[in-house]
Amino acid sequence: MSADGRDLSQNKANYTPLSPLSFLKRTAAVYPDRTALVYGQLKRDWRSVYVRCTRLADSLRKLGLKPGETVAVLSANTPEMFELHFAVAMAGGVLNAINIRLDPASIAFILEHGEARIFMLDSGLGHVGKKALALLDKPPVCVDIPDTQAGLNSLTGSVTYDDLVADGSEQSEWLHPEDEWDAIALNYTSGTTGNPKGVVYHHRGAYLNAVSNALVWNMGPHPVYLWTLPMFHCNGWCFPWTLAMNAGTSVCLREMVPEKVFQLIDDHRVTHFCGAPIVMNMLIAAATRLQKKLKHSVNAMTAGAAPPEAVIRQMEDMGVHLTHTYGLTETYGPVTLCAPQEQWSSLKPDERAKIQARQGVKGHMLEDLMVANPNTLEPVALNGEEMGEVFMRGNNVMKGYLKNPSGTEQAFGDGWFHSGDLAVWHADGYIQILDRSKDLIISGGENISSLEIEDVLYKHPNVFEVAVVARSHPKWGEAPCAFIALTEGADETEQSIVAYCRENMARFKIPKTVVFCELPKTSTGKIQKFMLRKQAEELKREPLP
Amino acid sequence: MSADGRDLSQNKANYTPLSPLSFLKRTAAVYPDRTALVYGQLKRDWRSVYVRCTRLADSLRKLGLKPGETVAVLSANTPEMFELHFAVAMAGGVLNAINIRLDPASIAFILEHGEARIFMLDSGLGHVGKKALALLDKPPVCVDIPDTQAGLNSLTGSVTYDDLVADGSEQSEWLHPEDEWDAIALNYTSGTTGNPKGVVYHHRGAYLNAVSNALVWNMGPHPVYLWTLPMFHCNGWCFPWTLAMNAGTSVCLREMVPEKVFQLIDDHRVTHFCGAPIVMNMLIAAATRLQKKLKHSVNAMTAGAAPPEAVIRQMEDMGVHLTHTYGLTETYGPVTLCAPQEQWSSLKPDERAKIQARQGVKGHMLEDLMVANPNTLEPVALNGEEMGEVFMRGNNVMKGYLKNPSGTEQAFGDGWFHSGDLAVWHADGYIQILDRSKDLIISGGENISSLEIEDVLYKHPNVFEVAVVARSHPKWGEAPCAFIALTEGADETEQSIVAYCRENMARFKIPKTVVFCELPKTSTGKIQKFMLRKQAEELKREPLP
Repeated sequence: MSADGRDLSQNKANYTPLSPLSFLKRTAAVYPDRTALVYGQLKRDWRSVYVRCTRLADSLRKLGLKPGETVAVLSANTPEMFELHFAVAMAGGVLNAINIRLDPASIAFILEHGEARIFMLDSGLGHVGKKALALLDKPPVCVDIPDTQAGLNSLTGSVTYDDLVADGSEQSEWLHPEDEWDAIALNYTSGTTGNPKGVVYHHRGAYLNAVSNALVWNMGPHPVYLWTLPMFHCNGWCFPWTLAMNAGTSVCLREMVPEKVFQLIDDHRVTHFCGAPIVMNMLIAAATRLQKKLKHSVNAMTAGAAPPEAVIRQMEDMGVHLTHTYGLTETYGPVTLCAPQEQWSSLKPDERAKIQARQGVKGHMLEDLMVANPNTLEPVALNGEEMGEVFMRGNNVMKGYLKNPSGTEQAFGDGWFHSGDLAVWHADGYIQILDRSKDLIISGGENISSLEIEDVLYKHPNVFEVAVVARSHPKWGEAPCAFIALTEGADETEQSIVAYCRENMARFKIPKTVVFCELPKTSTGKIQKFMLRKQAEELKREPLP
Repeated sequence: MSADGRDLSQNKANYTPLSPLSFLKRTAAVYPDRTALVYGQLKRDWRSVYVRCTRLADSLRKLGLKPGETVAVLSANTPEMFELHFAVAMAGGVLNAINIRLDPASIAFILEHGEARIFMLDSGLGHVGKKALALLDKPPVCVDIPDTQAGLNSLTGSVTYDDLVADGSEQSEWLHPEDEWDAIALNYTSGTTGNPKGVVYHHRGAYLNAVSNALVWNMGPHPVYLWTLPMFHCNGWCFPWTLAMNAGTSVCLREMVPEKVFQLIDDHRVTHFCGAPIVMNMLIAAATRLQKKLKHSVNAMTAGAAPPEAVIRQMEDMGVHLTHTYGLTETYGPVTLCAPQEQWSSLKPDERAKIQARQGVKGHMLEDLMVANPNTLEPVALNGEEMGEVFMRGNNVMKGYLKNPSGTEQAFGDGWFHSGDLAVWHADGYIQILDRSKDLIISGGENISSLEIEDVLYKHPNVFEVAVVARSHPKWGEAPCAFIALTEGADETEQSIVAYCRENMARFKIPKTVVFCELPKTSTGKIQKFMLRKQAEELKREPLP
């Protein structure tokens, strides 16, 4: 018997493993009639979502799924995709949501590496999914998800998602995890080199990051959330679980079409949506084209790349309140945010946008964040100048990489997660990402941030999109090479762009090559710099001296 | 190597024991200049609170405090009381905040049973504290907290709180708990019979319930919270930790004086405060007396007893939005809430107040809540009629009772926490407490809820406060006995009250005795029914037949 109650042990009354499944159970009980899902003509309340997930979990187990085994899914942002974020875990399984823009070989690699036992396949993606399956020696059981709202019928020959829902028992007991450290999801990084890595999430982290989302964004009860962010991206940054917690409504969306987004925002009085800056950029361009104004104010969260200052200002002008966050697949999505400070309200819009473009401070549930020398782990000075790598630790950092002990060791080796992103640390404690380690341009011995050059170019009225990468240079070793997509009908030359740069940045940062083209992007809207780097090296013409 | 990543282990990068100390650390870093504490002329920002707590933790350890040892405190709601909620834990200690209305013998019992090593003593409570110390063979080290804002100077002879702050090092490393199951606080129940029980809280529960408070109440960032609720009551329902999480401002308050409360609400634009229904009742009476209207709308949370419908309505009329919650010392304070439903807005005020008087549904972080037969644990029917005991389980249920294995076993024996409260379960899933097990009146074989009778009597225009208890009855075994405090200047008789009851309740529920008097209360504003029960039995006159 100790004075500090250390002998008092855990029991069923005072300990429950943290799991986002608790949120679904609660919301189905407290708000059974509130709308959970909207998709085309379909509306589904929380009671129905819970019942369907219970049934589906039962069927998955009858299909032979054992606790800890993987269920892969290749799907757009459909109601089924949302439900799978609960149903798979309720069967004790691990959800592996696969990037829908991948080629069959990459999908096959992921299915094999993740040891998927069941593969849920959106009928709209059947062609690529079937090709992937054909590449496997031991393909998983395939389940079709016919998207009837989009007029996409079932692929023949397979059992459908709704068959499983129909076959499962509503009375069956689903599995709450015995250990909150048990895996809930598996997400493959987009890995620009080599094979992708399988990032494992656990129930504890999913629970905490779901709550963190609500706190960081001050969402309040019953948000109406539009799914502009793919759910296969860090499980939609954990928002399916957040929406179960705060009893929100998910407005599903098959494809990011700006006209459709504006329509849904108006029709359902959407309060929140997420997306990479490129998504915001598309909406700004469409708003100008369509002369569209929002009828009510909306909150948008952006991450995945730093939003150019111009994007921040234009979103605000449109009536969208933008929250800038930052994270990686390895951190369950966003874990830092550019938390607004009272005194910012007195800043001029341009100055404020500049500060809002920073990645900011740790969110409520990230334990530690620092910018440090990657070799010594010595934090850099908080002067906005000294560059270092971003390090995090906390409960919303991944469990590790699946079947990749050396990768896991590298990521965690010294008690901090190595993000691979380079940043400076400002005097007010806010971090600002300058580049991915591999995106840094080293020219004549000077470190040049490609982001910084992009930020300047984004302010040019005729520049729609821009990406700057390193290109070998006979004199400087490397030099910046700018790839630019111009706004429609605009006319610029390499000379005019370089002249603009000369007015707006230090001499050594001016791009020595300017290319006008469409920019290649990943499914999550990130510009694929590795392709541009390759393209830059293959250019025939010489860079400027 | 397993397919579900089960081999991926915890390390410093991906696991941190949950503790509210993380919230203080974050808020001091992100919002260093925001006001954390206001008290009289004193204003203190989060940076200072963090530095002072770091220093104090260092001094506590220098005083010999070992991890897991108890620091007791007897204090009003002062800034020091707030800081101790962090500083003691940062030294690895367990905070035991003692009820300031207790007599010296009870305080001595608690100091001895809790094995306090250090005793922090508010100078305004020095007389009773010193008397308690004099009763102990081995008194703890005493530290004075002079309340200079209230003009209460230090007691001579002891080291003061500020001495410890001054002596500690700002550079010292404070202790984050190694295990989130480690104790953070010890709170003694008010135990109406026998010795009080020591309820142990752990860091995990304190963290989660702090977050739950913010979610349940939709507090948002930077609330201004007025301390009308004693911090010795379930650690102020965990709100010191909530306010560190959402970077709020605490407006401290030595005594619950309505005039002062209204003044502080106006002066500091208070957004939130808590209190038992009796606190709300005092404010309503004062508002009428002073013809006071609030200049802005304020959120109040009430718990500790069911708020009479009349109180709910009058608070709303005053401009206070009331949230009704329920919990016990054993559940870190409130864990259920009467969550508002959309369709309630179309109800008439009286009907809505009736529904709002229910204790409601589980909060976001309570795992399970049920009303069941205490012997079989069979849930009662959801019909609003069948009575049962309230049971809870989840991470915000206590670790157990200190040095009391049989009490702990009784509370937890069958995997549910036994609340001892009797309730019905309505068809919509909302629970409604009818009584404490021991407050139930069994009259002629019928169960009578004293709360129900009180609710009716509270609607009588001349009734200020009322408590109904069981009194022995020659014919019925027991019968209701009503103790009533009338509004100032009002005139009523037993006959007039009984006549009123005859109009408004079932015959067998009508009190057989009516007594007009002041009602005895605990320091937390709860009416002390055990004293009234004793008084009822000692009455000389016969009850009505």
